[in-house]
Amino acid sequence: MSRLAVTEKIITAKVTRGLKWSDVAAKVGLSKEWVTAACLGQMTLNEEQAGVVAEVFGLTAEEKQWLMVVPYKGSLPTSVPTDPLIYRFYELVSVYGTTFKELIHEEFGDGIMSAIDFKMDLQREADPKGDRVSITMSGKFLPYKTY
Amino acid sequence: MSRLAVTEKIITAKVTRGLKWSDVAAKVGLSKEWVTAACLGQMTLNEEQAGVVAEVFGLTAEEKQWLMVVPYKGSLPTSVPTDPLIYRFYELVSVYGTTFKELIHEEFGDGIMSAIDFKMDLQREADPKGDRVSITMSGKFLPYKTY
Amino acid sequence: MSRLAVTEKIITAKVTRGLKWSDVAAKVGLSKEWVTAACLGQMTLNEEQAGVVAEVFGLTAEEKQWLMVVPYKGSLPTSVPTDPLIYRFYELVSVYGTTFKELIHEEFGDGIMSAIDFKMDLQREADPKGDRVSITMSGKFLPYKTY
Amino acid sequence: MSRLAVTEKIITAKVTRGLKWSDVAAKVGLSKEWVTAACLGQMTLNEEQAGVVAEVFGLTAEEKQWLMVVPYKGSLPTSVPTDPLIYRFYELVSVYGTTFKELIHEEFGDGIMSAIDFKMDLQREADPKGDRVSITMSGKFLPYKTY
Amino acid sequence: MSRLAVTEKIITAKVTRGLKWSDVAAKVGLSKEWVTAACLGQMTLNEEQAGVVAEVFGLTAEEKQWLMVVPYKGSLPTSVPTDPLIYRFYELVSVYGTTFKELIHEEFGDGIMSAIDFKMDLQREADPKGDRVSITMSGKFLPYKTY
Amino acid sequence: MSRLAVTEKIITAKVTRGLKWSDVAAKVGLSKEWVTAACLGQMTLNEEQAGVVAEVFGLTAEEKQWLMVVPYKGSLPTSVPTDPLIYRFYELVSVYGTTFKELIHEEFGDGIMSAIDFKMDLQREADPKGDRVSITMSGKFLPYKTY
Amino acid sequence: MSRLAVTEKIITAKVTRGLKWSDVAAKVGLSKEWVTAACLGQMTLNEEQAGVVAEVFGLTAEEKQWLMVVPYKGSLPTSVPTDPLIYRFYELVSVYGTTFKELIHEEFGDGIMSAIDFKMDLQREADPKGDRVSITMSGKFLPYKTY
Amino acid sequence: MSRLAVTEKIITAKVTRGLKWSDVAAKVGLSKEWVTAACLGQMTLNEEQAGVVAEVFGLTAEEKQWLMVVPYKGSLPTSVPTDPLIYRFYELVSVYGTTFKELIHEEFGDGIMSAIDFKMDLQREADPKGDRVSITMSGKFLPYKTY
Amino acid sequence: MSRLAVTEKIITAKVTRGLKWSDVAAKVGLSKEWVTAACLGQMTLNEEQAGVVAEVFGLTAEEKQWLMVVPYKGSLPTSVPTDPLIYRFYELVSVYGTTFKELIHEEFGDGIMSAIDFKMDLQREADPKGDRVSITMSGKFLPYKTY
Amino acid sequence: MSRLAVTEKIITAKVTRGLKWSDVAAKVGLSKEWVTAACLGQMTLNEEQAGVVAEVFGLTAEEKQWLMVVPYKGSLPTSVPTDPLIYRFYELVSVYGTTFKELIHEEFGDGIMSAIDFKMDLQREADPKGDRVSITMSGKFLPYKTY
Repeated sequence: MSRLAVTEKIITAKVTRGLKWSDVAAKVGLSKEWVTAACLGQMTLNEEQAGVVAEVFGLTAEEKQWLMVVPYKGSLPTSVPTDPLIYRFYELVSVYGTTFKELIHEEFGDGIMSAIDFKMDLQREADPKGDRVSITMSGKFLPYKTY
Repeated sequence: MSRLAVTEKIITAKVTRGLKWSDVAAKVGLSKEWVTAACLGQMTLNEEQAGVVAEVFGLTAEEKQWLMVVPYKGSLPTSVPTDPLIYRFYELVSVYGTTFKELIHEEFGDGIMSAIDFKMDLQREADPKGDRVSITMSGKFLPYKTY
Repeated sequence: MSRLAVTEKIITAKVTRGLKWSDVAAKVGLSKEWVTAACLGQMTLNEEQAGVVAEVFGLTAEEKQWLMVVPYKGSLPTSVPTDPLIYRFYELVSVYGTTFKELIHEEFGDGIMSAIDFKMDLQREADPKGDRVSITMSGKFLPYKTY
Repeated sequence: MSRLAVTEKIITAKVTRGLKWSDVAAKVGLSKEWVTAACLGQMTLNEEQAGVVAEVFGLTAEEKQWLMVVPYKGSLPTSVPTDPLIYRFYELVSVYGTTFKELIHEEFGDGIMSAIDFKMDLQREADPKGDRVSITMSGKFLPYKTY
Repeated sequence: MSRLAVTEKIITAKVTRGLKWSDVAAKVGLSKEWVTAACLGQMTLNEEQAGVVAEVFGLTAEEKQWLMVVPYKGSLPTSVPTDPLIYRFYELVSVYGTTFKELIHEEFGDGIMSAIDFKMDLQREADPKGDRVSITMSGKFLPYKTY
Repeated sequence: MSRLAVTEKIITAKVTRGLKWSDVAAKVGLSKEWVTAACLGQMTLNEEQAGVVAEVFGLTAEEKQWLMVVPYKGSLPTSVPTDPLIYRFYELVSVYGTTFKELIHEEFGDGIMSAIDFKMDLQREADPKGDRVSITMSGKFLPYKTY
Repeated sequence: MSRLAVTEKIITAKVTRGLKWSDVAAKVGLSKEWVTAACLGQMTLNEEQAGVVAEVFGLTAEEKQWLMVVPYKGSLPTSVPTDPLIYRFYELVSVYGTTFKELIHEEFGDGIMSAIDFKMDLQREADPKGDRVSITMSGKFLPYKTY
Repeated sequence: MSRLAVTEKIITAKVTRGLKWSDVAAKVGLSKEWVTAACLGQMTLNEEQAGVVAEVFGLTAEEKQWLMVVPYKGSLPTSVPTDPLIYRFYELVSVYGTTFKELIHEEFGDGIMSAIDFKMDLQREADPKGDRVSITMSGKFLPYKTY
Repeated sequence: MSRLAVTEKIITAKVTRGLKWSDVAAKVGLSKEWVTAACLGQMTLNEEQAGVVAEVFGLTAEEKQWLMVVPYKGSLPTSVPTDPLIYRFYELVSVYGTTFKELIHEEFGDGIMSAIDFKMDLQREADPKGDRVSITMSGKFLPYKTY
Repeated sequence: MSRLAVTEKIITAKVTRGLKWSDVAAKVGLSKEWVTAACLGQMTLNEEQAGVVAEVFGLTAEEKQWLMVVPYKGSLPTSVPTDPLIYRFYELVSVYGTTFKELIHEEFGDGIMSAIDFKMDLQREADPKGDRVSITMSGKFLPYKTY
């Protein structure tokens, strides 16, 4: 799986060159959320986007090519994540999963919130008792239909 | 585990009485997100809150008592959820997990977004191309410290 | 989980009354695929549909009520199914999974075939060398978008 | 496992040469579904087919040899797939598994739809509300017999 | 799952009445292998066969009805069996699995031995060094075909 | 684990030299079932047998040495096999496991069929409706004893 | 599974009657190891042994019948045991597993120590630094043979 | 994990030099059970012991150093072992686990048999019906205490 | 498993009677840590302790009897706990596991900290920035010995 | 994952140079617990700390860079640890998990002990009956709040 090799090269380049994801995103001209996911091997870049990323991280022409191939998605090594930051998101699904289900069905009926037609925005929320992480997610509601 | 029995009684009462979570929440005087989670056995109610919930769902005194005991949390029967609506949230963790990690660390340094000092708000977002589910999450950032 | 109890009552009624899914579907006025899935606890019926199903299987008013509640989906007891008929479908995903991925991406780009905006039709296909099962699936293509 | 190495070389060649599976299939003279699965290490090619594939992807004589050996099948790294496109197919088995079972048994009696004597066809289905993926599967029905 | 309840009743009846599977099979007029599997909830009986089994084990009319419904197959509680007798068969698959694969492909090409169009015969094989269990399995070879 | 390396070298040599397991077995002077299992790293060869195998596949003296070491057995990468041919054997254990148990205990009492003092023979069985795979297994019955 | 019910009744009777396994074994006239395993649902008793056990624990005639049926073996609820005493034995297998393998093969060649033709003896070993548990296991060596 | 590399070098050296564990143990001056476990990466050697082992297997100074570091223990690649010899020990834990528990508690009260303050001895036991493997285990009993 | 039933009765009695673990412990005359674990089915009480607990929770004579039987230990329903409070302890093992190992071995050599000869004390630690949970664990070091 | 490579280099350097974690910690000027965890790839070092560690273990400038990147945490290869020392901690969570939960909730109400705002201290506790490992953990209590 060569896309994985490209992802690892990007991560190494980021560490050694001291880059920031938000700066890379600004150069690509898209949100930091989408660009980071793409650089981490979860999204597909078009020619122009791939060109910018390749230049930023010093990728070869073949490596750039891989950025334009749809990757095999899923960024975690285990089904229950061990990393504490990522686990907290898993815990939210575990604790609030049935709450998400009840409230979305109450408002929209049977269906799901799309994880494909989806975008999100992650911000620092200043708070005197300690700053907070604020994440806004927006996914299209897709109804089940009878047929 | 009697709390589970109370949760099942609440769900049955909701179905047969045709109640809505948002109405229950209004009576309790708190957000629909927290109240639904509490009714589904994930949060702990105080005396007053438990009294309202017990009345709404027709619970006995002993059942009301259980609402005030801290429950064993985790609302899902399998570690990878099978329900499509809930799975989409798991998929977001799987696809965007490393992105969450990178962006939060870039902004805040090493630490996590708390899933305890946490609140969220789920809304319908009108959209001509199909309404969307909008979820805003806010969790305190907790830094790792050296010692 | 009371919906499960209703599902089991439907299955028992089907066995003892000698009913056929296609006849039930004809009475509901929808496809046999959707109606069977609904009776097996995977889809949500509206008032009218639930009324027909309740009559066919002799359900009580409360049981009918449950048919109109969105169920917790997922119809199988293990993540790798043990039943030979169902396993063959799992095997198709295992063997052809990457082929589905390659061909859909080649034709449509990055995205998925929806399992929500989805319908299917299952037919007997006469064949002198032995009749065949023919299944036509149709799911909307949902593209990933940049943001 | 050398067949795996050949598969990876094919995928890399496809990316760097900018090939399309449908073109490869046309050269082999078979369906794109079967040819893609074969190139991805799930089917066995005969001498002539292997010759075409070897030329298209620039394989050595030994690598071509491997294409003619029956592979160890199963194309996915985890038993529940993490890739969203492939997961949707798993979800269909999870949600509709018991429906497949009921309807096939109702029509054919006890037995299975073969995943070996099987073929499929994947097409774009134009739709004003958004194009759809259409997949037609055809598998021989194999009855259990008494003995 | 009522078929399970019928299976348990059959097993209990067998214990308390002191019946033998080979005698039951003789009454049904089929092999002991198929009849035992059917009584253990893995095969489907026709009206006449079900009648005999119902009489032998003292089943009610409704229980007899369940024998004629295709069961959800798979007779073991865990994916790796804990019972020593059954584990030895699992061990044979683990140790000889790749040998089965190599020899069947060498003789027949790509395909499988059917587990559906399948029969078997289990016999005592007298041996001065200790009697042996002899099992003869016969399954139709099903070839993969190109399309 | 060097025995694994030797196994892989044998498989590669078989592919590139176009050898057949039955021919190798004939040279060793034993059954094709045992010899194939041994070459696939599941059995232990004596000096003479290892010499023949080493010559056939072009192994070095050290590689030949490894053939004479008892291997860590178990030939499959996952506990539920993904390869369709091998899965069918797992399915037989899953569906017929309790039948094996009942019939062997009925005939022999409490104990097991040995998977060690065991031999088998795999043959093509000509059949006008399609040739069949015939496997005869013979394992010593080992009784549990009281003490 | 009625044998399970009998096992639970035996355990309850033991607790309420204040019995000791060694006394039960003395009445049966066999080792405490075998008799305890049999009472816990892992071995099969003959008519006479079952009669003694039934009397000791106050079982009914039908319950006694179950003691004479070969049970589905495996006494633990999880594949890695959680109970500390039992886990230590699992740990011995985990830590010393390869040592057992090496030393038995060095002494006997390829084969196994039988877990069927097996007996054991568990004793208190007085020791001034703290008494010890001493377990002596004896299992027949079963060699793999060529064929 | 370099200790693993040293273990593999030891195993390879043993095969190519034709050494026996009992001879190595004699040179070290300890039991064959402890020395084999140590060479297989499960125990920690002191300077003198490491020196002997290093000489016997031809290890470098750095490799010898690793023998003196406490290893990460656990010698098996899967939680349920696939190798038949090792599996039999796992089966003993599965079948006799609750028997060990009952008898040790009956004799000693609540506590465990230590797997740390533990030693064992493995011997061939001559038997006209076939030689046996005899293993004597001795572990200190550690009582749970109230506090 | 009747001990489980007693545990559930104790928990229910605690909820309905509004008892506190520290008060129960005071009556028993032991630490709250040990007494709570015992009441939750993880430790074994002697006659006198069981008498106090039985009176406090209103248990019958037979239920009291069960408190004096060594329980099958392990208090959690899944191997990775879902409850957030308990998960944090699992996370400490996951993150600090290798640190525990390094530091204990550095100080004591090869061996373990006993989880049997173990006691602990849990206290509130006042802190102006938010009170803290303080847990002091003390376990005997048990060295591995050569033999 | 290059941080892993740095961790392995540190461990190797420690073995070959004969360093002690407590000495490394003294040079860094922080606790041995935090420094060891950081060196084992679980914590993030600042420029100055990384400089000391790099010098002690002889790391390159790029390797030092990696020490300052937040690592993907979780130090164990399996979800249930196989190493006996680390398993004992897992066992404590398994046996005492519900006790931790009850006592912390009794003292503090609903919430958790933080594993982030956390510190610990590991000491040798002299004891005539055998020295003990003493671990003091201190984590901030984080309450769930209503919203």
